[in-house]
This record gives sequence, C-alpha cells and structure tokens, in this order.
Amino acid sequence: MPSISQRGLLMPASPIRKLVPFAEAAKKRGIKVFHLNIGQPDIRTPEVALEAIRHFDQKVIEYSHSAGNESYRRKLATYYHSNGIMVDHNDMIITTGGSEAISFAFKVCLNPGDEVIIPEPFYTNYNGFAVAAGVNVVPITSDIRSGFALPPISEFEKAITPRTKAIMVCNPNNPTGYLYSEEELLQLREVVLKHDLYLFADEVYREFCYDGISHFSVMNLEGLENHAVLMDSVSKRYSECGVRIGVLISKNKQLIASALKFAQARLSPPSLGQVIGEASLDTPAEYFREVYDEYIARRNYVIEALNKIPGVFAPLPKGAFYSVISLPVDDADKFCQWLLEDFSYEGQTVMLAPASGFYATPGLGRSEARIAYVLKLEDLKGAVKCLEEALKVYPGRTK
Amino acid sequence: MPSISQRGLLMPASPIRKLVPFAEAAKKRGIKVFHLNIGQPDIRTPEVALEAIRHFDQKVIEYSHSAGNESYRRKLATYYHSNGIMVDHNDMIITTGGSEAISFAFKVCLNPGDEVIIPEPFYTNYNGFAVAAGVNVVPITSDIRSGFALPPISEFEKAITPRTKAIMVCNPNNPTGYLYSEEELLQLREVVLKHDLYLFADEVYREFCYDGISHFSVMNLEGLENHAVLMDSVSKRYSECGVRIGVLISKNKQLIASALKFAQARLSPPSLGQVIGEASLDTPAEYFREVYDEYIARRNYVIEALNKIPGVFAPLPKGAFYSVISLPVDDADKFCQWLLEDFSYEGQTVMLAPASGFYATPGLGRSEARIAYVLKLEDLKGAVKCLEEALKVYPGRTK
Repeated sequence: MPSISQRGLLMPASPIRKLVPFAEAAKKRGIKVFHLNIGQPDIRTPEVALEAIRHFDQKVIEYSHSAGNESYRRKLATYYHSNGIMVDHNDMIITTGGSEAISFAFKVCLNPGDEVIIPEPFYTNYNGFAVAAGVNVVPITSDIRSGFALPPISEFEKAITPRTKAIMVCNPNNPTGYLYSEEELLQLREVVLKHDLYLFADEVYREFCYDGISHFSVMNLEGLENHAVLMDSVSKRYSECGVRIGVLISKNKQLIASALKFAQARLSPPSLGQVIGEASLDTPAEYFREVYDEYIARRNYVIEALNKIPGVFAPLPKGAFYSVISLPVDDADKFCQWLLEDFSYEGQTVMLAPASGFYATPGLGRSEARIAYVLKLEDLKGAVKCLEEALKVYPGRTK
Repeated sequence: MPSISQRGLLMPASPIRKLVPFAEAAKKRGIKVFHLNIGQPDIRTPEVALEAIRHFDQKVIEYSHSAGNESYRRKLATYYHSNGIMVDHNDMIITTGGSEAISFAFKVCLNPGDEVIIPEPFYTNYNGFAVAAGVNVVPITSDIRSGFALPPISEFEKAITPRTKAIMVCNPNNPTGYLYSEEELLQLREVVLKHDLYLFADEVYREFCYDGISHFSVMNLEGLENHAVLMDSVSKRYSECGVRIGVLISKNKQLIASALKFAQARLSPPSLGQVIGEASLDTPAEYFREVYDEYIARRNYVIEALNKIPGVFAPLPKGAFYSVISLPVDDADKFCQWLLEDFSYEGQTVMLAPASGFYATPGLGRSEARIAYVLKLEDLKGAVKCLEEALKVYPGRTK
C-alpha cells in the first residue's frame, strides 16, 4: 500500500471537527445544541443576489476568465473605492473563496521552509494552507487581558529570521474579534519595510466594525505597494459562505502576474458565484444597517451576559462576530466535549470551539474558547444559560 | 521589494495564453477567428440543471460539508454504479472542479521532490499542479503514429526511480483523444502493484467514447483498491465548466481521510455548483445521445477533412473531443501565431493550440497542434478551410 505524504500526515484536522461526533450524539439523545462554535452566519443572503441567480439565463455555464470576469472585477473596484481603498481591476484575482486567496499568497510569496509570522490565536486554517504550501507559521502570542491587541513590535523583531518572508494579520480578527488600529498597522508597516517582508491582511470581516471605529486597510499603508497583499471574500459580507468567491489584491504587479499562473492552472473561479458576487454589489445600505444592528445587539448582550458568569472573562470585540473568552476550567477541550457528552440543562447544551486549536504554541489557550455570536438573540440567551449552569457543575472547574 | 517564490517563477504559463493577445488583435482587425484551441464545449448545459438553479430557494447560501453534500455524494454514487464503478459516498470528496481533485491527490500522495510518471503529450495543467505541490512530472513519450497509445511498459519500468510515487493517465485523453483499453490498463496495474505506486486517472471525458468502445475505469482494476485514485468533473459531462464541481474518489480510506483535511482547510466546495451537479444527475439519456451524435458528426467530419489536407495527419480519436495532429510546418508555435498575426482567408482564420505545451520533453511536438472539435459543424468547416489555405502560403512549410 503506497504511503501518504508527509504534508498529508501533518495537515491539521479542524479542532472543531473532533467535537462534531459528540454534538451529533447529543442531538440523537434529543438534546438541543446551541452552536456558538461556527462561523456560518444565520443572516439572510441579500435578495438582490438570490434574484440574480434565479434569473440566470445563460445556456451554457462556461469557464470565466481565470482572474474572474472583468465586469465583476471592475464593479468590485468601485466597492473598494467607496471604502477608500484605491485599487484597480488589474490588481485583482477573483478566487474560490478567501481560502484560495490565502493559498495563492502563500504559494506565490513563500518558498517551502520560509516563515510567516502570525499573531496567535489565529484562524486555524492558516496553518492548513501553510502545511499545504510547505511554509512554517511562527506565532507571536497576543493576550486576552489586552483584548488580543497587537503584541509589541519588539516581539516581531525577535521572531524575524532570514527565512521570514511575511507577516499576516486578520483584521477584524477571527477568532478574537479584535480590530487593529491604524497605529498598530503603522507599526507593522515599519517592520515590514525594514525587513522587506510581505504584509498579508485577511480583511473578510471589514464590514463588521463596531462602536464607530472605522476599518483601516493595509492597502492604505503608504509605501507598501509591493508589500501589502489583501485577501477578501463575499462569504461574511453578504452571508454567502457557500458561494466560494474571494479575491486576492495587490499593487505588486509581479505578484499578481505570478498568482494569475496559479489561477490559470485551475481554469476559473465559480461562474455562478461571480454572478452572485457581482449582483451583491448592489445590496442596499439598509441591509448592512440591519445586519449591523443585529450583531451589535447580539454582541452587547452576549459579552455582558458572559462577563456576569463568575470566573468568565470575555473581552469586548470591536469587530467580526467572534470573541475568545476565558473560562474557569482545567481544560477547555475537555470542557467542550463534556458539554456535549455529559451535560444538559433543560434538554439543551452549548457547543464552543476550544481555543487551543487557534494557538500554534503548544499549551496555550487551555482555558479559553471561541464563541461566534451568529445565532439570534433568543438562542444566544439559551446558550449563555447553558454555559452558566454547566460551569456550576463541571467537575474540572478551577476557580 | 520582497521576492516571488521559486514555484511562483517556475509555474508554467498556459501555452494558449501566449496566443490570446494575437487572437484579440486579429478580432480588432475585423477577422473572424475559429477557436479550435479551447476545451470549452459549445453544448448546452442540461435544462434540468439550469432549472434547478432558477428554482434555488434557500435564504442563506451556506457552506456545505467539506466533502460535499451527502445527498449529492449518495446520488453521485448511483451514477457511478450505473457505469459499473462500485463506489460509495464515503469514498468521495467533492472538489472545486476536477482541478482541485488533481491538486489534492498530488499533495496527499506525493512529497515535494517525488515523481509522477505521465504519458506525454498531457494536459498542461498537470504540470501546474505539480509545480504548486513541488512534485516532478516524469514524461513517457507516446507516439502520434500509434494514435498516442500507451507507451510500452518497459518505458515505464525504465523511468521508475525511488522517488516515483504515482503513474497518471487521462482517459479518454486530453489532448490526444486516445482511449486506453482494458489491456493497457491491466499492464499499468502490474507495474503499479510491482512498485507499490498510486495510479491516478483523470476520467472527466468518460461520457465521450466512440465507435462502440466502452470505457474501462481504473476503479475496476482488481487489487488496486489502495492504489487507484479517480479524478472526475461535471465540466465536460454536462457542459458545466463554470460550475467548478469535481470529485476525488478512492477506496483507500487513509487517502480520503487525509484529503478531507485539505478539504476542511478550504471549508467547502461551491454550494450552488453542488445543487447543479445533483440536479444534472437527472439529465435524460436523450441529452447524451444528442451530444454523442453531435460529437461523432464533428469528429468524423474534421478528422477526414484534416487528413485530406496535404501533409496533415490526424489520428482518429476514440474519445474526448480533441486530437493532436501533425502539420507540415517548421514550428507549430510560430505557425499558430502566424495564423492569427499574418494570415486570413476571406476575412477568417483559425486558432490552434501548439502541441509543444503538452509535452514535458523539450523540443517535442514542434510540428503538432491540438484541435478541439467543440464548434458546430459549419464553423468546423470554416476552420478546416482556413487551415488548408494557410498551409498553402505559410512561409515555414516543410513538406
């Protein structure tokens, strides 16, 4: 029997997937499970997007241009312009989800064995794309006590080696909900220029910034034209996760030309997804206001309620729809499994994502979990109640 | 300015893309260009598929299971059963086009520096996926005089090294149209078992087999359960290239489990594409009969007409909708460019894909080109006429 490759063996399994069989078993026992573990919003896809697909009238579903339909890229450029990001349709490769944009960036910019520095906790799949590309992730730990702000630049300086090729941030952040400030990004600009690195920014949660703070894009960092790489997606902006349309953006012509060759090898991004993506650009402002109001209400409720539970600390997220919270438990992996396997309150329980899977440094995040407030308020209340009751009786409680 | 990676530099550009600007310039000069260069069929997508998308009634376009919707995989299994391929929905990972199936197989089965043996000429993008995965393609040359039949097994034996991990075939073949026989595949079975290799088969043209010869799948090679890997796609079967839905199939549980981790990292294949793929399984038999009749008529016309042109040799393809033909020219790359840049006949010209791009061995295929008979008969006639007239006046004609 031929063997599996090293990367096939090293490829990390999703940290949430381990819990899925326990959640399924709980449901089979008749228990209602509140899913605070997922990044799939319950928000409706804009009607204008659904209408476009219902009126799809082509007779042959053909390949598109490998970089994506020009009409879509041109219209997408106007979206960025209206967000103060002055990019051109030639600076873009439409990708199969934000996932492919990240994958392209890793492959185009880093050689096998090269290093990308990422503040942890970070989106687990960055590690997956790194393994697939033979790239090493070097984590810099951010701290829950500062709400997971950017670690001191001195920590980045210490981590930089001759193999370092890029620094990557997710802004607003999944899993922490932290929104990096212009000042923090200016600090990254300095270190990136000093060491001639790429600065990758996953900005798929751009639309989800709260408390009147506006988002600052890496594309607006002066002098980083050849360094800044933006990964984006329609998934969260329009609740179109299944559409699988993202984009890789850079002013670095050589980078885009090289990424285009990877794009040509896989022929084209999904054609129907592009129809939806293009139509979604006409989503009325009202849609975003409603979504914003909904998330603000959810966030304000859930963070306040969590912080009222003795021993729990939940920093107030300024963006996205996640928070990494601290729990008074011995081991969040065990606790999250226990919630599904051994606990229920009035026939209900809650599923969280243990935070250990978001840290690259072994042993970190052991008493933390990520919550996603992608459920309606009523369900969030049920979820918080379950967590509160669970912590009263969990055998591994620590304080 | 940070540098591009080695693989970014090595990544091959599409051999056809080089000609695209010349085709565009010709069109600007008012010349009609017959595109024999492309793999995008003009056949209509089945109505049942288009209907499904027009009636899409979900309110949120969500991620699917990373391996694809179970309903789709179960139904897809019945398609394979009806084709005599006894696979289960758990043997499948639904992929973003056949492209991703190939990419997953390379990454899961081969380490960087490992080798995959592929008969040449071969589909150019195999090389692209190999570069992306750090894998080396070792070509074994097949010969136009045998219609590009499988090279002698002794050639495979000679090419096998300690780094060889897989043999790959495309059956029916793109670019040659050759259909490998059961006997040829049994020979591959022996060598694969002897050296404990994977046998990858790209069978996306399964539906396009002519002259009453039936397709034999690698999945039906006895004792290859852990070795055989099938890559498939809806693109050509249903003329749904833009849908980007394919599948990776193997009975090797470890391989599928490992591929699932790669699939989880990119979250899910396109959800709408899966709706279309699932609906397409109800395509009436009549659709395939009509498509078959159309391609047979095209093939019979184009091959006969080409062989009537002095100095041209076109082997009769038994499958797919391609043929690699021999031309009486000094350099097919130059000739194909000349056709677009310097030639027209009654305001028309023809675009071919130079075959050099389908060979990994430098210098091979210099007087060959790939044609795709994906145009309606009338246009094929115009294309052949252009080629005939062009060869009368081409300055680099050799015989």
